[in-house]
Amino acid sequence: MTHPTTITAEPGLPFVDIVREFDAPAAAVFRAHTDPQLFVQWMGPRSNPMHSVELDAAPGGRWKYAFRGDGDMEFAFYGVYHSVEPSALLIQTFEFNLAPGQVGVSSTRFDEVEGHTRLAVHEVYPSLEARDAAVASGMEHGIREGYERLDELLPS
Amino acid sequence: MTHPTTITAEPGLPFVDIVREFDAPAAAVFRAHTDPQLFVQWMGPRSNPMHSVELDAAPGGRWKYAFRGDGDMEFAFYGVYHSVEPSALLIQTFEFNLAPGQVGVSSTRFDEVEGHTRLAVHEVYPSLEARDAAVASGMEHGIREGYERLDELLPS
Repeated sequence: MTHPTTITAEPGLPFVDIVREFDAPAAAVFRAHTDPQLFVQWMGPRSNPMHSVELDAAPGGRWKYAFRGDGDMEFAFYGVYHSVEPSALLIQTFEFNLAPGQVGVSSTRFDEVEGHTRLAVHEVYPSLEARDAAVASGMEHGIREGYERLDELLPS
Repeated sequence: MTHPTTITAEPGLPFVDIVREFDAPAAAVFRAHTDPQLFVQWMGPRSNPMHSVELDAAPGGRWKYAFRGDGDMEFAFYGVYHSVEPSALLIQTFEFNLAPGQVGVSSTRFDEVEGHTRLAVHEVYPSLEARDAAVASGMEHGIREGYERLDELLPS
């Protein structure tokens, strides 16, 4: 079964909050976020498969993934892991190659209740303008469709 | 001459903004921020000298400095550099050992005009609560006195 994805971007605050439930244990949802061979299969919209991914999910480790755009255009997301608690928490910085010098921090919590997992992502942008630009870019579609792809990938 | 330090923590936003002028070129102010042997001489209040410092000021490099408190207490600040543009810009994450799992990002700009430098620091905390707790801790005194110590250290 697929659950709704709640995305909140309150006016006047530089945050994006995402909440989503999955019918799988936290260990499986966490693994899908940190194992590149799983991550590449679900993150992003169906229409544009990820073309490269590296995830060194340890404190101080780097992560990067990228999609191709028109022509030679590339959309790359990257950052550094700061906290990694297996099946429980990821805190990592995030940057986007088309917005240089804008460093955000996301915290992703994995809470398991009776075999189901509640995922809660808290993204902090460096300014209100950076947050608003990210939302205006159409990030919501990729997030929702990505989680639908993740539902299909998870053990049921 | 010593200039005033402007510290702004607007209610309802997770930011702290600091602006300070120095009667020295940007290269000298930048060096005082990235050379551990200079940094240890000015950062923090006069009453509590820094007892350890490591600054690997390169993208992906780590930084850490610490003060002693009562008994075995230590106050340690640490993080990872994300952008380093000599004499111009530092973007780095910051964490505090007494607030684990709270990762912030600071951007420090060094703008030189006619041999003087305008320093502008933009700190982004992961939540309003984390920002308010940092302000309530009395950070302002250490910042203002630190910059007075930096005035004394800079070439005039």
